[in-house]
Amino acid sequence: MRTSTEYFSDLMKLKPNVYVGGEKVGRDDPRIRPGISVINITFDLAQHPEYEELMTATSPLTGKKVNRFNRLPQNPYDLMQKQKMIRLLCQRSGGCIQRCMGEDGIIALSIATKEIDEKHGTTYHSRFMEYLKYFQENDLIAAAAQTDAKGDRIKRPHEQADPDTYLHIVEERSDGIVVRGLKHCITIAAYADEIIALPTRALVEGDRDYAVSFAIPADHERVRLITRPVWLRERKEFEAPYAKFGASDSVVVFDNTFIPKERVFMCGEWEFGRRLALLFADSHRHSYCGCKPAVSDILCGTTALVAEANNIEKVSHVRQKLSEFIGSGELAYAAGIASAIYGEKTSSGTFFPNAVYANVGRRLTGETIYHEYHLLAEVTGGIMATLPFEEDFTNEETKQDLEKYVKRNPNLSAEFHHRAFRLAENMGASGLGGWFQVAGLHGGGSPIMETITLLAEYDIESKKNIAKYLAGINKELNQSKELKEKPFNLLSAERISEK
Amino acid sequence: MRTSTEYFSDLMKLKPNVYVGGEKVGRDDPRIRPGISVINITFDLAQHPEYEELMTATSPLTGKKVNRFNRLPQNPYDLMQKQKMIRLLCQRSGGCIQRCMGEDGIIALSIATKEIDEKHGTTYHSRFMEYLKYFQENDLIAAAAQTDAKGDRIKRPHEQADPDTYLHIVEERSDGIVVRGLKHCITIAAYADEIIALPTRALVEGDRDYAVSFAIPADHERVRLITRPVWLRERKEFEAPYAKFGASDSVVVFDNTFIPKERVFMCGEWEFGRRLALLFADSHRHSYCGCKPAVSDILCGTTALVAEANNIEKVSHVRQKLSEFIGSGELAYAAGIASAIYGEKTSSGTFFPNAVYANVGRRLTGETIYHEYHLLAEVTGGIMATLPFEEDFTNEETKQDLEKYVKRNPNLSAEFHHRAFRLAENMGASGLGGWFQVAGLHGGGSPIMETITLLAEYDIESKKNIAKYLAGINKELNQSKELKEKPFNLLSAERISEK
Amino acid sequence: MRTSTEYFSDLMKLKPNVYVGGEKVGRDDPRIRPGISVINITFDLAQHPEYEELMTATSPLTGKKVNRFNRLPQNPYDLMQKQKMIRLLCQRSGGCIQRCMGEDGIIALSIATKEIDEKHGTTYHSRFMEYLKYFQENDLIAAAAQTDAKGDRIKRPHEQADPDTYLHIVEERSDGIVVRGLKHCITIAAYADEIIALPTRALVEGDRDYAVSFAIPADHERVRLITRPVWLRERKEFEAPYAKFGASDSVVVFDNTFIPKERVFMCGEWEFGRRLALLFADSHRHSYCGCKPAVSDILCGTTALVAEANNIEKVSHVRQKLSEFIGSGELAYAAGIASAIYGEKTSSGTFFPNAVYANVGRRLTGETIYHEYHLLAEVTGGIMATLPFEEDFTNEETKQDLEKYVKRNPNLSAEFHHRAFRLAENMGASGLGGWFQVAGLHGGGSPIMETITLLAEYDIESKKNIAKYLAGINKELNQSKELKEKPFNLLSAERISEK
Amino acid sequence: MRTSTEYFSDLMKLKPNVYVGGEKVGRDDPRIRPGISVINITFDLAQHPEYEELMTATSPLTGKKVNRFNRLPQNPYDLMQKQKMIRLLCQRSGGCIQRCMGEDGIIALSIATKEIDEKHGTTYHSRFMEYLKYFQENDLIAAAAQTDAKGDRIKRPHEQADPDTYLHIVEERSDGIVVRGLKHCITIAAYADEIIALPTRALVEGDRDYAVSFAIPADHERVRLITRPVWLRERKEFEAPYAKFGASDSVVVFDNTFIPKERVFMCGEWEFGRRLALLFADSHRHSYCGCKPAVSDILCGTTALVAEANNIEKVSHVRQKLSEFIGSGELAYAAGIASAIYGEKTSSGTFFPNAVYANVGRRLTGETIYHEYHLLAEVTGGIMATLPFEEDFTNEETKQDLEKYVKRNPNLSAEFHHRAFRLAENMGASGLGGWFQVAGLHGGGSPIMETITLLAEYDIESKKNIAKYLAGINKELNQSKELKEKPFNLLSAERISEK
Repeated sequence: MRTSTEYFSDLMKLKPNVYVGGEKVGRDDPRIRPGISVINITFDLAQHPEYEELMTATSPLTGKKVNRFNRLPQNPYDLMQKQKMIRLLCQRSGGCIQRCMGEDGIIALSIATKEIDEKHGTTYHSRFMEYLKYFQENDLIAAAAQTDAKGDRIKRPHEQADPDTYLHIVEERSDGIVVRGLKHCITIAAYADEIIALPTRALVEGDRDYAVSFAIPADHERVRLITRPVWLRERKEFEAPYAKFGASDSVVVFDNTFIPKERVFMCGEWEFGRRLALLFADSHRHSYCGCKPAVSDILCGTTALVAEANNIEKVSHVRQKLSEFIGSGELAYAAGIASAIYGEKTSSGTFFPNAVYANVGRRLTGETIYHEYHLLAEVTGGIMATLPFEEDFTNEETKQDLEKYVKRNPNLSAEFHHRAFRLAENMGASGLGGWFQVAGLHGGGSPIMETITLLAEYDIESKKNIAKYLAGINKELNQSKELKEKPFNLLSAERISEK
Repeated sequence: MRTSTEYFSDLMKLKPNVYVGGEKVGRDDPRIRPGISVINITFDLAQHPEYEELMTATSPLTGKKVNRFNRLPQNPYDLMQKQKMIRLLCQRSGGCIQRCMGEDGIIALSIATKEIDEKHGTTYHSRFMEYLKYFQENDLIAAAAQTDAKGDRIKRPHEQADPDTYLHIVEERSDGIVVRGLKHCITIAAYADEIIALPTRALVEGDRDYAVSFAIPADHERVRLITRPVWLRERKEFEAPYAKFGASDSVVVFDNTFIPKERVFMCGEWEFGRRLALLFADSHRHSYCGCKPAVSDILCGTTALVAEANNIEKVSHVRQKLSEFIGSGELAYAAGIASAIYGEKTSSGTFFPNAVYANVGRRLTGETIYHEYHLLAEVTGGIMATLPFEEDFTNEETKQDLEKYVKRNPNLSAEFHHRAFRLAENMGASGLGGWFQVAGLHGGGSPIMETITLLAEYDIESKKNIAKYLAGINKELNQSKELKEKPFNLLSAERISEK
Repeated sequence: MRTSTEYFSDLMKLKPNVYVGGEKVGRDDPRIRPGISVINITFDLAQHPEYEELMTATSPLTGKKVNRFNRLPQNPYDLMQKQKMIRLLCQRSGGCIQRCMGEDGIIALSIATKEIDEKHGTTYHSRFMEYLKYFQENDLIAAAAQTDAKGDRIKRPHEQADPDTYLHIVEERSDGIVVRGLKHCITIAAYADEIIALPTRALVEGDRDYAVSFAIPADHERVRLITRPVWLRERKEFEAPYAKFGASDSVVVFDNTFIPKERVFMCGEWEFGRRLALLFADSHRHSYCGCKPAVSDILCGTTALVAEANNIEKVSHVRQKLSEFIGSGELAYAAGIASAIYGEKTSSGTFFPNAVYANVGRRLTGETIYHEYHLLAEVTGGIMATLPFEEDFTNEETKQDLEKYVKRNPNLSAEFHHRAFRLAENMGASGLGGWFQVAGLHGGGSPIMETITLLAEYDIESKKNIAKYLAGINKELNQSKELKEKPFNLLSAERISEK
Repeated sequence: MRTSTEYFSDLMKLKPNVYVGGEKVGRDDPRIRPGISVINITFDLAQHPEYEELMTATSPLTGKKVNRFNRLPQNPYDLMQKQKMIRLLCQRSGGCIQRCMGEDGIIALSIATKEIDEKHGTTYHSRFMEYLKYFQENDLIAAAAQTDAKGDRIKRPHEQADPDTYLHIVEERSDGIVVRGLKHCITIAAYADEIIALPTRALVEGDRDYAVSFAIPADHERVRLITRPVWLRERKEFEAPYAKFGASDSVVVFDNTFIPKERVFMCGEWEFGRRLALLFADSHRHSYCGCKPAVSDILCGTTALVAEANNIEKVSHVRQKLSEFIGSGELAYAAGIASAIYGEKTSSGTFFPNAVYANVGRRLTGETIYHEYHLLAEVTGGIMATLPFEEDFTNEETKQDLEKYVKRNPNLSAEFHHRAFRLAENMGASGLGGWFQVAGLHGGGSPIMETITLLAEYDIESKKNIAKYLAGINKELNQSKELKEKPFNLLSAERISEK
């Protein structure tokens, strides 16, 4: 497994294809560094003995120890460990660990390639597993490029005026394919090793050319990464981990890009568009059942911290507010656990989380995210947006004024207060704060997307049958489906625990 | 195991001590029959081959097959089966299966008696286990009498002007104790075989006499059950299961009641007041993670049914509303599963659900219950409260008018419409509907009680430590507690599933 | 003006055409009496000197003093007085004064008949004003019959399989018309003097026969009133005003009913279907800005009352809850005031409330109604649904038990507690409580209907223009429309108040 | 009246006492310019004929035409015009016009000085009116400095460890007073002409020295303005009004500052601390009933704009969301109107808005502000936080890519899309966006402050009396208070409108 230093040195080898603010920049541009600092955590903790069991595991593919982010889950426990790892790392990185999108990309492809092969007799699965071996052995970071530019929201890909608003195949050659199009909102693309492209929606036959999936290096020829980084105002004296983190999202432009055959994992199988899109989305929503609880943890902790600074930690309405974070964080986390327990073994061997639970969990966090910032702001007070800049706290002319101003709890130092309110300000009154609100709402699919998935997956008819029975419309209530439905490995669990 | 007929015949043998509407009545009073109809389900399905695995299990105590409601859970799977049983049975009984309170009572006592013995060298546990053997072998129904009248809400039991507002010991004798006081909101007392009394809150030393727990037959001497039944308007032609169900709650009066020694399970151990109260409450909240999802199922199904009748089932806002039921039902159910997975083996051998998850799950359902009725009412329309009485649908002078009036979806019969709207009316515009709203809010503890429990149980300090780390107040983030925290039987699950 | 005794005696003269529970019954049926008790208030207070200015006013039509419910508003002050009258009377009657629907019916017809005449040269307006003279002089009560049975919700009236699901003209004769069809959810029809029929929706040319409006006596030939009354459990010793009130809703069947020409106010003018329907709806929504604040007042007062009984009136979360009622009640009331101030003088001389404010006000109360019951239930506790029946409080065997049980606040009598909790139970765990929830949601149009009206009436484009200006898409921001928009009689108000 | 050019030139004359980011800077610092651009609007439109009636009025004090922001309201119409002016100007300035705090400061002082004089025989009122004359004639801008640093939230001013956390008198001299202390969250202080200091809370006798109010020039000796400006990323090619606006908040430090006698308006009259604090707060909350509707207007308009760009403007859930902005904006605006209509003439002659309506209105907007950003974000999509920087839209290497990427609605240009999403990004993913969220929550008092005011001002007892009457606890319902309560100038309005 790589160290974070090796990761950075590998990044430096990439050819420049990143654009920020009107310029082509190198991967060493300071504006994308905050995102790299986040990814570093995933390398550093994998080397840390205490985190070893959480961060690493043996790959069934190679028999070697790999970073858990790069491994395919085999059972409910693996999914629970993945969820836990994401939560703990997101706590450290201020709310988003960013690497999970690659994990969800390989999970989705491991399953879909197998299923396509089963139907079409193709050989995508072995091709993908070869790639995965390379991916694991080099401990790579991948950006999963799913969301297309999409153009007119009410038209299908092949109906768009501009065919490039969705990524598509423009030429099929014996040695590979040529693709064109735009993916956007692609976090970490600017500091990933690889880009994995996946379809974003259900496709119809006319969309055949849009059924395409592949993986390429991030600096592949004819790929442009137009990148929007977000970072916090630099700290000078009052350094803090939170202030070092940030993120970058890219518009990924494929401009008649050639993809070699061994890197192509779907090519025209439009009936699998919805399946592959949802495999990624549902796996990612399961990941969100780990990361969003961490966001609640951080907002809860920060709210408790400023409450302590304001000396109102025991006040009834503050306590009530703290308990709201517990509610949304732990309900979402519980949904992830249920999703693991009720997951299923796919034909590929990859163990996949239950869609209903992943979706109710992730949706909840999308519904509550702005409210959680509201809670933090309510307890912090106006100072969240009006705290003078750091330098005024060190300027000799104003230092004493501001120390008087900021001190509230007589048991805590002025610096403690300053740091606590600075953290709240960083969260609630900055571009990064806005980024986290939007990510909390839309990342992995906004609540309306989960609602759509739920309405498609959930058996509302069986609920209606209960009503029909109770109303005397149907004479019997057939519950045999529910009676048969079991948590994965249920009997084994029972047998063991009764020992 | 008893049949429902045997249960009823046993009820008929009880001495009359039930009061309804100013009269002493027998257990055959038609106003309490709807509650008996609910309990019958738990006997009938236990005899049904398809439900056998769900409804029954071997008791570790006796080695015999018992009704699952009367058995102590031994592992996470048992808790999941309990939760599932409650959900499926509540679906059948219109929302509350009522028998779980006895189950939660024996779970709580099995643990607390052991822990009291461990501290005080008493012998409550074996005494209780003897009782439980009797309880299981006779397949009994118990009302758990926890909530005291409580008098002045801001005073402790021993500070009350009237000492009887909380149940207490008035005399200790060699052969038993004499108790006096009032318990209220005690569902099923009027048609239970037994009453199990439990303390309702944390106690201080001065409350010693209030630390009392015991079990007695429901018609025990000097016990009065002042009972408030609730039932629906009787159906004549359009019979339906829902209309047959109801409930009764009693004020249980202990009027210098003698409790024989072998039925006393706590007697003065005030330091265990909170523990026993919470063991019952948290176990019951775990039960609510099964029953409240069933309430959501029923409300969801009924909403879908009236939407079909109104021919608006595909309308966007109706679909959105249906998905809200999925959210609250499945999140609460997931919380129950996580509560089982993260449960713990107590010293008594009984496996107990995790309190945080049980509380976030049950709280959610309390927060959403009125909103769910709102959703049902919104989709049903004004007809929910204005539907003419059944007889006008059969009166020859008005039958034709009402069939015209009620018919909306051209593909469904007038009777289908009538039955669907009648069900909605029964739910949303009746005394029973009000009962279900209040029970959905307060049963097992209202949201504010769960909030209090959460604020006591949850480690907010560890969240604040995350904030301190991110703010640069603390240099390190210690996550070792979380790293060690594991789902029960985790490694075994892993080992097995990897086979 | 009539006394309530005269009103009742007039009711007794009506021919029996009311059906309840399978029987044809007289207006003296005890089940409809609770609604009559509500209407009585409007007669009794009109005779009361203190209420004279509020309850009565000179009719511009006749120059005589009439009940304000039967008079056409002429200016903003009249609308404010109407709103205030409704609020105060609803406080007395437990939440709904029922007579306003007649008022809103005559307001709507006074305007629409004038506008139809202006377009078509018809003479509906004078015909209607003649009727109104009769109506005022006899101090009549009218049920406004608007809501049709409506059949298939996704089809227009003339597209329905059964043409009678909407009321329509089947024959036009020189002396009148013959109509057939069903109106439903028609409150007070069973104890009104008159029934005023109005169209329920926008119509297209094919719906011509459905464009019909008229007024007839409630016992008119070939009219059937299939009636669903709702009442509370009768009080024996602990009488209370609340327990005497109730309501009845009818399915009003027009079965080839002949309407004499002088009572026909619209006949085929389909282009005015939407206008007349909305005139009634918006006027009624303005009425709801008076009645729903009274519902909030009552729920607030009852919550405060049970809080006092529970001795938790000063507890922080209870105070917060009380303030929520203030919010929804007074915001809706304020919307009614703004609606009056920004109302308009129609060509008929009737002053009409502003639609946007009436709709935001009424919608708010529909959105919050279930939540308000939730608040009441939360503060009351489980006793709301489990309070034993009244007779158990007087039965000598249980009286003492229940007085102990019910007493919480040491400064208040057992009877005070009993009465307070009985009121809460009557509100929150009864058929009438369900009726009020549904009426609070759907009466005058459910939130979704107000949303539809708002989206039709509100100038969203002008808001978009603000965004276009701020975005630099448009160079100028034209606010001249808003600059010209003035509250009615603004300058006069200014001139006077500056004196 | 001044022009905006004169205002700026006057600002340039001020002595430097502004600190930003560790430096003392001039009023020409570009970081505070965005706030000046906002204030300019209030000068520019006052010169504009179309806005003359709105923006200016005759001062009863001088008989001259003055800017409405600097004039005392005399009647309900004046309050409505103030509210309207604020709404229209806030629409233009992106959500906050900033000048109203000075207006609310002079309103509060005009009333309180009179009332203090009435009680104490002092001469503050004439002193203040002299100052106001100067203020009006020079068309000045004032920052109202109310919020003290406040130190420990659970202690009173005189109990604080550091006495300077609240502004207080340290010396009383014949020619004036010397004060010390810190005010914070003081918007516009850095570009105001004057600073008006007001107490922030109820005071007790021990707080006597904290009862102090005065006005001084913004560059007064021994006053420091430690300032936190907020601005947007500068536009280069795609200029837009929104991008030019911003705000600055200051910590205002009084460091043994001498205040000349003629500028002192309260000096030790601690019993008026609460009154003056609330006069300012309630007047300011009435102002918020004008500005927050404008924020809803802007967010509504921007949501509609991005919906158009996304070509989803007609989609049902988008329509529903747009209607939510109408609800909160217009309910708050209606509350302001009701507050004006039910306002009162104070002894000073200043007409003051009704506190209950001002508080329910402002509270609503504080409760909904984060939700409104949620709505905007939901309709905009992830692009709100990931839109590449402006320069990438003009860089020749990436321009074409981004035009493809941004274009969604085939009827609109790429530039239209870019501008629309840029506006949304400026609002929802920037430091300024965070500032507006916090200001929307806390400005003028957060919801919890309005709740406290409401619970103090509202007659809950009268609501409880309704419940007591309905419960049969009281025999009569006394409504005479409500019967007497009238909108201001009610009879005159009636008389006129009936002409």
